[in-house]
Amino acid sequence: MYDRVKGFRDFYPEEMQARRWAMDTIEAVAARYGFREIGTPALEPTEMYVDKSGEEIVEELYSFEDKGGRDVALTPELTPSVARMVVAKQQALSKPIKWVSTRPFWRYEQVQQGRFREFYQTNVDIFGSADPAADAEILAVAVDMLTELGLSAEDFEIRVSHRDILSGLLESFDAEVDTREAIRAVDKRAKVEREEYLDALYETGLSYDQAETFDELLQTGEEDLEDLAERTDDLREATENLRAVLSATEDFGVRESLTLSLSTARGLDYYTGVVFECFDSTGSVSRSVFGGGRYDDLIEGFGGQPTPAVGFAPGHATLQLLCERAGVWPEETLSTDYYVLQVGDTRATAARIARDLRERGHVVETDVVDRSFGAQMGYADGINAETVVIVGEQDLENDEVTLKEMDDGEQVSVPVDAFPGEYDRPTYADFAE
Amino acid sequence: MYDRVKGFRDFYPEEMQARRWAMDTIEAVAARYGFREIGTPALEPTEMYVDKSGEEIVEELYSFEDKGGRDVALTPELTPSVARMVVAKQQALSKPIKWVSTRPFWRYEQVQQGRFREFYQTNVDIFGSADPAADAEILAVAVDMLTELGLSAEDFEIRVSHRDILSGLLESFDAEVDTREAIRAVDKRAKVEREEYLDALYETGLSYDQAETFDELLQTGEEDLEDLAERTDDLREATENLRAVLSATEDFGVRESLTLSLSTARGLDYYTGVVFECFDSTGSVSRSVFGGGRYDDLIEGFGGQPTPAVGFAPGHATLQLLCERAGVWPEETLSTDYYVLQVGDTRATAARIARDLRERGHVVETDVVDRSFGAQMGYADGINAETVVIVGEQDLENDEVTLKEMDDGEQVSVPVDAFPGEYDRPTYADFAE
Repeated sequence: MYDRVKGFRDFYPEEMQARRWAMDTIEAVAARYGFREIGTPALEPTEMYVDKSGEEIVEELYSFEDKGGRDVALTPELTPSVARMVVAKQQALSKPIKWVSTRPFWRYEQVQQGRFREFYQTNVDIFGSADPAADAEILAVAVDMLTELGLSAEDFEIRVSHRDILSGLLESFDAEVDTREAIRAVDKRAKVEREEYLDALYETGLSYDQAETFDELLQTGEEDLEDLAERTDDLREATENLRAVLSATEDFGVRESLTLSLSTARGLDYYTGVVFECFDSTGSVSRSVFGGGRYDDLIEGFGGQPTPAVGFAPGHATLQLLCERAGVWPEETLSTDYYVLQVGDTRATAARIARDLRERGHVVETDVVDRSFGAQMGYADGINAETVVIVGEQDLENDEVTLKEMDDGEQVSVPVDAFPGEYDRPTYADFAE
Repeated sequence: MYDRVKGFRDFYPEEMQARRWAMDTIEAVAARYGFREIGTPALEPTEMYVDKSGEEIVEELYSFEDKGGRDVALTPELTPSVARMVVAKQQALSKPIKWVSTRPFWRYEQVQQGRFREFYQTNVDIFGSADPAADAEILAVAVDMLTELGLSAEDFEIRVSHRDILSGLLESFDAEVDTREAIRAVDKRAKVEREEYLDALYETGLSYDQAETFDELLQTGEEDLEDLAERTDDLREATENLRAVLSATEDFGVRESLTLSLSTARGLDYYTGVVFECFDSTGSVSRSVFGGGRYDDLIEGFGGQPTPAVGFAPGHATLQLLCERAGVWPEETLSTDYYVLQVGDTRATAARIARDLRERGHVVETDVVDRSFGAQMGYADGINAETVVIVGEQDLENDEVTLKEMDDGEQVSVPVDAFPGEYDRPTYADFAE
């Protein structure tokens, strides 16, 4: 007997059915917004990730040399692959490019609750629009996905921030600040003690007083954004962009799900404008459920023409945790419309009935093991068959089959030639007197 | 600019849409038969494949040592993973186990037409039934999938054979035959010169006369199966099993798509009963489109209790070649129900209309780039929008929007408050006088 590789998971049908529901649900939302599915490779050149994130990323990669001597890595995220695809067909692709895909990614990380070494994400991105409406559409898709999963506005909170406000604030101090490191410190703010947080800001070049002031400014609410705007021209521009995005989300009908939260920073370096993270309102799911934002410089960094971009990527493991917490994760059970039960040598008729029911789009199983009545009823119960069609030799002599509802046990004889007949989803009720 | 890894592919939206259609179509067929989706890891212990197929398989694997010192491989096929999953929950799983999954696999092979290093398969398997009805159901699912893709009985041919007939015939000669190697020789029969084929059989222990006789027996048609049955008890049993499977396929309504072809052998060692391969009837797609069969010993080989099994795995690359040859592969273009065009500052109304149309399940795009009328019309045309809703400032002053059909250019003014109103899929015709 073999063991699974650590951090990798098997999904048996019951769990998979629930996961499939979640994937289909959020993909359908993206599709209605006109996001188009793409397909991407599982392996990419390792240097693509090293160039983007530095040599230290290799520690987190499943990277190796293939049999042709290529340094390759199992893709740890989608963005570089998508950037490569955009650059490869830059001229041919009409803008905006709106892409979506759901697939696994791989990182050699510590395994913990909601974090595995193989994990699934749905990536949603718009390339080619710097307009606030693009940011707003991404936020609208995010909110609609959560709503479509059955979550209510009380279940989650999307905290919106802006990278240029963070960097603009840092630059407004009379100090040489390492902006990138300071933003990383803000990103870790909620996860560390206050002293450690202030120390981290001090390390980036702020004095302790400046760090305190900076942190106070991060608490600015929407009504006081104007105070920040007045500090520098960069901050005026950034706050205006943020306001424009928030205003557009009103048109898109999702403004009420968003909260201004400047201390939300996002860990990744490549963000350039609006950033956001989704949290469980109750805090029961302690980690960010997912996040996203604007990254206008990435395509150019990949050798393409300057192309603004904005996107987000819900991870299915944390999304499931939130759905479970909110009580909207579906029961993990199989569902079956019909089981066609054979008693004696009735396969020809049973198969014909099964075929006719399948043609109507139903999930239909019939005996392929040659088992007893009891074993078949047990199996039908195990797969949660709603209706059992009993095709018995004796019944067939009278040209009849029996229709049995599994929830209440009601059953009725039906002329075999009239079944399923004109009915789309025939049940006991259609034939009972 | 980065290059893709050799043998890996990007799928842009137009091509992906066609591939998604094919995947969804065949998965829906499996679902209606009660096959349940499972999810499996991309990495497995390398030894799992070495134990099953021998040390030489490593040459074809993307295998490496992970950062924890584990010898792992990108899964080259699904069967070992599925066998591992069956063994892991052997007691808990009620039989028959009917599983399906679609996903990529990876092999370091020569890249050629319809063969890539990353390739997609849909695996369909039944565990826990030795009954001929299980073999027949697998064949029925295979035929129904092809039919549902739009292929007709004239487009393809499924050649059915039986491993026990092949081995039974080989053992019926007065010779010490290496059965496994002889079956491999039969599998290569159509790909090599006759002399090479007979040499290969000679190498396995048959004399040249016996090889000729054996090959003649492989040409036995269905009407003469009884001649084979009379040679040995094993052959009687095997031919009876084959007959029973073919008879069951009559009940399942797919008998006419099957041809007896004993020289169809399938390359893999683990098959134990009925085997089959699907071919393009015209021969234009020269390779086997897909194949499958019974493999009753595998689960035991993986440390489980003896568990009969039968399955098949259509590969999406060859399936696409067949569909293209038969003219049923869909046109690779985007499809969009509505484009909501904004002229002037009309985003609030446009967004409301887009939202209402999306709620009705339609694919709807609207401007997120702040572009001109002309640029938006060009984009709407590029995404093949069927209907354009023009929301103009002036029209709105009269509380109207314009509905324009893109195929014939017909357009009509519509009261903004009545749109989309009670209509599910409002078009020009609903509002034209």
